[in-house]
Amino acid sequence: MKSSPLPLLFTLFFTGLVGCQSTTTADTNQNVSAQLQQKALESSLAYDIVESLTVEVGPRLAGSEKDLIAVQWAENKLNSLGFDKVYKEAVKVPVWQRGEAKASIVSPFAQPLVITALGGSVGTPEEGINAPIVRFESLEALKLAEPSQVLGKIVFIDHITPRFKTGKGYSITVGGRSRGAIAAAEKGALAIVIRSIGTDHDRMAHTGMMRYQEGVEKIPAAAMSNPDADLIALMLKRDPNVILHLKLTPKNLGYATSYNVIAEVTGSSKPDEIVLIGAHLDSWDEGTGAIDDGAGVAIVTTAGHLISQLPQRPARTVRVVLYAAEELGLIGGKSYAKAHQHELDKHYIAAESDFGAGYIYQLDFNVADSAFAAIQAHTASMQANGVAMGNNQASGGPDVSMLPNHGVPVASLRQDGTDYFDYHHTPNDTLDKIDPKALAQNAAAYAQFAYLMAQSEIELRPLTSKTK
Amino acid sequence: MKSSPLPLLFTLFFTGLVGCQSTTTADTNQNVSAQLQQKALESSLAYDIVESLTVEVGPRLAGSEKDLIAVQWAENKLNSLGFDKVYKEAVKVPVWQRGEAKASIVSPFAQPLVITALGGSVGTPEEGINAPIVRFESLEALKLAEPSQVLGKIVFIDHITPRFKTGKGYSITVGGRSRGAIAAAEKGALAIVIRSIGTDHDRMAHTGMMRYQEGVEKIPAAAMSNPDADLIALMLKRDPNVILHLKLTPKNLGYATSYNVIAEVTGSSKPDEIVLIGAHLDSWDEGTGAIDDGAGVAIVTTAGHLISQLPQRPARTVRVVLYAAEELGLIGGKSYAKAHQHELDKHYIAAESDFGAGYIYQLDFNVADSAFAAIQAHTASMQANGVAMGNNQASGGPDVSMLPNHGVPVASLRQDGTDYFDYHHTPNDTLDKIDPKALAQNAAAYAQFAYLMAQSEIELRPLTSKTK
Repeated sequence: MKSSPLPLLFTLFFTGLVGCQSTTTADTNQNVSAQLQQKALESSLAYDIVESLTVEVGPRLAGSEKDLIAVQWAENKLNSLGFDKVYKEAVKVPVWQRGEAKASIVSPFAQPLVITALGGSVGTPEEGINAPIVRFESLEALKLAEPSQVLGKIVFIDHITPRFKTGKGYSITVGGRSRGAIAAAEKGALAIVIRSIGTDHDRMAHTGMMRYQEGVEKIPAAAMSNPDADLIALMLKRDPNVILHLKLTPKNLGYATSYNVIAEVTGSSKPDEIVLIGAHLDSWDEGTGAIDDGAGVAIVTTAGHLISQLPQRPARTVRVVLYAAEELGLIGGKSYAKAHQHELDKHYIAAESDFGAGYIYQLDFNVADSAFAAIQAHTASMQANGVAMGNNQASGGPDVSMLPNHGVPVASLRQDGTDYFDYHHTPNDTLDKIDPKALAQNAAAYAQFAYLMAQSEIELRPLTSKTK
Repeated sequence: MKSSPLPLLFTLFFTGLVGCQSTTTADTNQNVSAQLQQKALESSLAYDIVESLTVEVGPRLAGSEKDLIAVQWAENKLNSLGFDKVYKEAVKVPVWQRGEAKASIVSPFAQPLVITALGGSVGTPEEGINAPIVRFESLEALKLAEPSQVLGKIVFIDHITPRFKTGKGYSITVGGRSRGAIAAAEKGALAIVIRSIGTDHDRMAHTGMMRYQEGVEKIPAAAMSNPDADLIALMLKRDPNVILHLKLTPKNLGYATSYNVIAEVTGSSKPDEIVLIGAHLDSWDEGTGAIDDGAGVAIVTTAGHLISQLPQRPARTVRVVLYAAEELGLIGGKSYAKAHQHELDKHYIAAESDFGAGYIYQLDFNVADSAFAAIQAHTASMQANGVAMGNNQASGGPDVSMLPNHGVPVASLRQDGTDYFDYHHTPNDTLDKIDPKALAQNAAAYAQFAYLMAQSEIELRPLTSKTK
């Protein structure tokens, strides 16, 4: 096949030109990144947003009336903040009402307990359940138990969640919350109560989602505060026959419609390519949803707003997604992945902020190994904001965690979570737990990240490891 | 008048001898003091006692069934610990039942609140009260308000309790709790809610006693958690018309009998002279009464026990008094002062432990100024246990605070109360808040103090300042 030399010359010329442009662009990118950092650190916007959400909306359990108030709040807020587009996408969510949760030790030493129903739990009979407790150190120990130990009793999983900066203690113990009721019911338990999946010593129980399994009886499931779990453990040392009274009145009431609320800063040259930064709008019902995940909503909204205020739109579209019903099982995230499957190949990268408001100390990616060094170099300006370069094993955050299976690169902006599980899923998740300076540092990091990703000329695909 | 020189010689001789004995005795006293310190620091007894009380009894509101269980527990415990006498004295106490406490913001932003009824409060009508809030920075600001500002509203005293090692922040704000309902009712308020008298940021309301006044209407009184008070303050910034719904169902049910429980190590040479170390046995009903005042019960009981285990009884009687119904208004303390008025002149000194389990850092007295230097020298061995010499303006602790008015010297073993008001009068007053090492240091200090007082040859009366 004959070919003219002209196109090759043109190609070389333009490659060289692009090379020059890239250097200039690289400088510009770093300058803009530094400006975004400064603007974010000087701004109270992120704190104002989370204050507004927690004060004007407060608890917003997916599927509740308050959830729709939160959706309206989000649309109004995003519309006021200079985004090019604001829209919402319907998500079908289950409706679960907490009702009342009461428990007490009947004998050997009568004492009231502080408990909370786990999300999705069925209720007890109206008169409650009175039964002996059988204690296990962990879900694994329960699984190894003889059914005769468990039959007709209330299982008590007494697994202490250790404290780590990364929050990895949660992953050690949370199985008891999510899958404990199945394991207990399989051996004939009447109910299950767990030591809260939390690192605090407060007299507050930590709620959170639990699951049932087709074909296994649905038994009531609750968590007790850490001091209450200590109390029962000390009673069991005195007398192995501890009788618990448990009454839960939650209700599963079918389905309702919630919404992923989405806002965009339209890309200047590649508007159909998307940099997704997300957080979840729903919260548990007992706190005001400040750290989980009002903080994330504030961080990514502020980041998008700051980018919208730049003199020029970045190349790619920056899409802020406020997910529905994360707490009930990543429902908004899964719904998004399905609704947007036609354009997932256009998602350059995605990241979710859902770990409170502690300082971001590290940036991890999940990109092609061949791109990892280049993308780290491209984000080097984030180090001035305290963000060190990390590894290539990011999960990206709960609502984007399924995207790598579709080939979408993700990043994790790793936050200091030392105290996150002190407050997580409790009434204590309130505005006062947020440090405005740390929140601003988060907003700065997300603004820098989203901008730099929107400007990047690095090919991040195909992923070397699909998921963490 | 003629006099023989012989008596004078004898007097001089015996004075010299007593002087020599004193020096020897002083050495012995310091040695025993050091031994007591070591034994206490090596012993887990104090922690075992507070664990036993919180696990086997738990909440023990004066006048409740649990209060009598606590009295029985105390008699059993003291009888097992080597005291020479254990007895109880009846105390008439009011019976107040907490019932239910619910509150929520109705408008402009509907949100549930975390509140608790103040001790002694009357209830609301069954349907609750819906009324606008009127906010005051302090009790003093409320007192200065025009009645027209308050009439028909719910008063909200939003006074933040500052944190101090000495706990003095409490005395700044507690007037709003104890006397706020009177001031609010005098101006026509329907109810009063206060920011909790607490230094924490936990979503827990702090209960505590409140008062009514003859001739002034009794209105319902509640406290809300600090984060809830923050929330209302932020709503008021957005809209001055904040409507609160308040429902309280406490009941005042007359009177019951409780008991001061008393144990003694009988003095060897001055058995009718008394060194009183006390704590209160009752607790509020929402925690397990660990720091308030299970810790004090454990500290003074351990101190008395350690003295009972010495090879020789000290000169004076060491009397451990576990007071009834301190929380409801120093009722056990006042009852003791009345029942023992015939022997108050034989009370050498008194001190109460009722400020948690923080390290004791200072020993204050209220004794004759002329005796102050001598009694400080006499207690110098306590410095090895971290207890510095303090001032001569001690109050002695709540249940002994009335004794200086009867001429009885008192001492305050000052504890580090930096975090005491984080947990005080909340569900969070549980065993895990106690550091076993700090508790043992307290027991050591009380053992040393009680022993040295029982051996002292210093005349502490008459008091220079009757009360602090």
